[in-house]
Amino acid sequence: MLGARGGWQALRGCASLPRAQPAVRLRVREALGAREPAGEVKVQGWVRSVRSQKEVLFLHINDGSSLENLQVVADPSLENRDLTFGSAVEVQGKLVKSPHKMQNMELKAETIRVVGPCDTWSFPLKMKERHPLEYVRQFPHLRCRNNMLGSLLRIRSEATAAIHSFFQDNGYVHIHTPIITSNDCEGAGELFQIETSNEARESAEKTHFFNVPAFLTVSGQLHLEVMAGAFTHVFTFGPTFRAENSQSRRHLAEFYMVEAELSFTESLQDVMQVMEDLFKTATNTVLSKCPRDVELFHKYIAPAQKDRLEQVLKNKFVTISYNEAVEILKQASQTFTFKPEWGCDLQTEHEKYLVKHCGEVPVFVINYPYDLKPFYMRDNEDGPQHTVAAVDLLVPGIGELCGGSLREERLPFLKSRLQRLGLADAYEWYLDLRKFGSVPHGGFGMGFERYLQYILGVDNIKDVIPFPRFPHSCIL
Amino acid sequence: MLGARGGWQALRGCASLPRAQPAVRLRVREALGAREPAGEVKVQGWVRSVRSQKEVLFLHINDGSSLENLQVVADPSLENRDLTFGSAVEVQGKLVKSPHKMQNMELKAETIRVVGPCDTWSFPLKMKERHPLEYVRQFPHLRCRNNMLGSLLRIRSEATAAIHSFFQDNGYVHIHTPIITSNDCEGAGELFQIETSNEARESAEKTHFFNVPAFLTVSGQLHLEVMAGAFTHVFTFGPTFRAENSQSRRHLAEFYMVEAELSFTESLQDVMQVMEDLFKTATNTVLSKCPRDVELFHKYIAPAQKDRLEQVLKNKFVTISYNEAVEILKQASQTFTFKPEWGCDLQTEHEKYLVKHCGEVPVFVINYPYDLKPFYMRDNEDGPQHTVAAVDLLVPGIGELCGGSLREERLPFLKSRLQRLGLADAYEWYLDLRKFGSVPHGGFGMGFERYLQYILGVDNIKDVIPFPRFPHSCIL
Repeated sequence: MLGARGGWQALRGCASLPRAQPAVRLRVREALGAREPAGEVKVQGWVRSVRSQKEVLFLHINDGSSLENLQVVADPSLENRDLTFGSAVEVQGKLVKSPHKMQNMELKAETIRVVGPCDTWSFPLKMKERHPLEYVRQFPHLRCRNNMLGSLLRIRSEATAAIHSFFQDNGYVHIHTPIITSNDCEGAGELFQIETSNEARESAEKTHFFNVPAFLTVSGQLHLEVMAGAFTHVFTFGPTFRAENSQSRRHLAEFYMVEAELSFTESLQDVMQVMEDLFKTATNTVLSKCPRDVELFHKYIAPAQKDRLEQVLKNKFVTISYNEAVEILKQASQTFTFKPEWGCDLQTEHEKYLVKHCGEVPVFVINYPYDLKPFYMRDNEDGPQHTVAAVDLLVPGIGELCGGSLREERLPFLKSRLQRLGLADAYEWYLDLRKFGSVPHGGFGMGFERYLQYILGVDNIKDVIPFPRFPHSCIL
Repeated sequence: MLGARGGWQALRGCASLPRAQPAVRLRVREALGAREPAGEVKVQGWVRSVRSQKEVLFLHINDGSSLENLQVVADPSLENRDLTFGSAVEVQGKLVKSPHKMQNMELKAETIRVVGPCDTWSFPLKMKERHPLEYVRQFPHLRCRNNMLGSLLRIRSEATAAIHSFFQDNGYVHIHTPIITSNDCEGAGELFQIETSNEARESAEKTHFFNVPAFLTVSGQLHLEVMAGAFTHVFTFGPTFRAENSQSRRHLAEFYMVEAELSFTESLQDVMQVMEDLFKTATNTVLSKCPRDVELFHKYIAPAQKDRLEQVLKNKFVTISYNEAVEILKQASQTFTFKPEWGCDLQTEHEKYLVKHCGEVPVFVINYPYDLKPFYMRDNEDGPQHTVAAVDLLVPGIGELCGGSLREERLPFLKSRLQRLGLADAYEWYLDLRKFGSVPHGGFGMGFERYLQYILGVDNIKDVIPFPRFPHSCIL
């Protein structure tokens, strides 16, 4: 089998292949991007449109390698009953320059074989219709064959690769932090508990598979901190879970999080710089690798997003302190449902106002009240308005995209705080880390789905995951 | 903050920096690899050895960027009480050519600052001791500061990146298949069931968070098949779970699996070719990117593994059919606990014999009995010894490393098999896929931990994961 690369390289190597050779298998993307015509190529994919004219039969076929279809031009005698929208075909022929401006190459078919017919009557996607995201969400096992979802999942794949590359290129070690864990990190939300199927059927006084109650992770942070104490720079990018029983457009029970920890930080700015670099590098990569896919979203879903994103990528992110944020909110002409007050959490309405106030750009809010934040955040020791070195990155339309902090590396500070919270025993291992070469360090997490929502302007978080919310069918 | 790249590039750009500039921050790996001496550099890390002589103080420091330490040479006056094994230091000075053959560069210290002291008395790792893997496994939060585990986790990180690159370079779309799912794929083993913490505390007649029982995934295959029907080539690389209550050296409750699905396959060989290419490409990348880390394992853990692996990478994998395998086993002089018989599963003892018989190399066994394999495998329709197009890749010391098959793409075959099993309703969506442009396709999975065990010659699977088996402390 010729892989994507094999085919591509073979084509570039010899512009027109001698007849006797077997057909070179090409992906649609490769065929569209070919610089020279080529004889005897084979393209496989699914039919996106059929147009039969007296003199000529036009097909558009797509194999998921790109948003664009490959136009196939054939003699009408090659038409057959099974050659319908949605059917799978194998087309053999010559790759030639297209006379149309819109496309570079087209395939002059010599043979068309229907590999798998399609029951078009019961197929929920229809030819040349632009189905709304809400409609295709009903068909979790078929919606990936819709243009919009195809683009989304290619973008998701490229963004994943870009995030991995960013960290690798900067000397970070990738750690698979545990999914099943007995720590709840920070009491960050409702947990999912896990049992073996047998245990679940029994009742209260059971023994656990792991001897202690076990949960699905809400964050890999504490495990990453362990590793930052050995590798200096580490990251993880995996699934995290919250049992929030919400049907909102903003929450998922299962979502992906990018998390990084850095040792030998000098200030919170070190952490913020990585957050900003990650966002900009990943986004630039996605924009340059999937321009047509991104364009689809910026054309039909969020028309203004393209220009705004370009501005964001050019400029430095804005930074304000929590103190400043509260002042801005107090001076706002707008009336809020929750009155802004020092010491209270910023609500969604507050975050929206702050982002708008700063010009609809990403905004770092730093140095939050000590009492609002989890035990591991570093005490700023800054007098009556007592804060910790925490940072949230707020972005337009989404709210919090990233959260991070310096971690409390000083044993006495951490110990007394954990003791006051009655957690010193549970976190003995975490205190332990502060005894053996503890260094100033910090880290952050970024919600991957929220990242995709923001750059593409997608309103509902369910539209940026491969399979929409459970249970629709038995495939999540 | 200067990232790993920033520092490196700065150094190469100007061999010796003017005095007035702030010190360039370098990772240990960068300092060791520098081509030219450099003035005013800053290196941070943890002390691996201290040797104080009359005229000179030697330190070895490590920051996790490489197995090798950076030698620091200092005036004895810079010594202080806290400068011990395990402490964290920041050293500023000049990077100079080392007079020693064993290393390229060393750091002539001007200042040494102890950033974090180490309570050496209670620190379980000791200076210059080679701790056995069983010993360090007791300290899940500290063992990553041991040489062997440091190397292992760098290799794991590089192998992860290499696997991602392999698929990306070959035009595969990366899919995050669901972790929480209601399908059990193939009845592949004991499942973990999930509940919200509240539900778990209540009893029998509860409503589920997801309305139906939900489990942790045992495989992303079925979800990937959905996606292969849109993108042609797809892969996933994530955690999978089995509630096998075993304390063996071969099983984990949580482990990583690489899975791929390919549409438009022509035969089982297409799938096998990807398995072999993946193995060889990833392994060659790891060997070239982490030569010293791999060497450590091939020196102290599995001395013969290096040569064997080189042979394996040079030669084509061996292929035998299940029928041939049974014949080989029947003719073996060895007596087995389980008598080899056509129609029975291959046991570990059988797999070991087959691998040995073929010369201690990876062996593909293909075309297993129809009745041994799950419903989704493609019927070979081959008469009395009725088989399916399945393949297992067996490797020395491990047994099954990969498993794959062609999937049954023909609606009538799949439907009648599911009906006989009483599963037609549960898998209605899966049958549905066969109605809309179904194409010949296949795929495979590779256990990532077993892969690491095999290439490094590590006996216990717990030694190739970041945090050993739960529960040891509250950090998995």
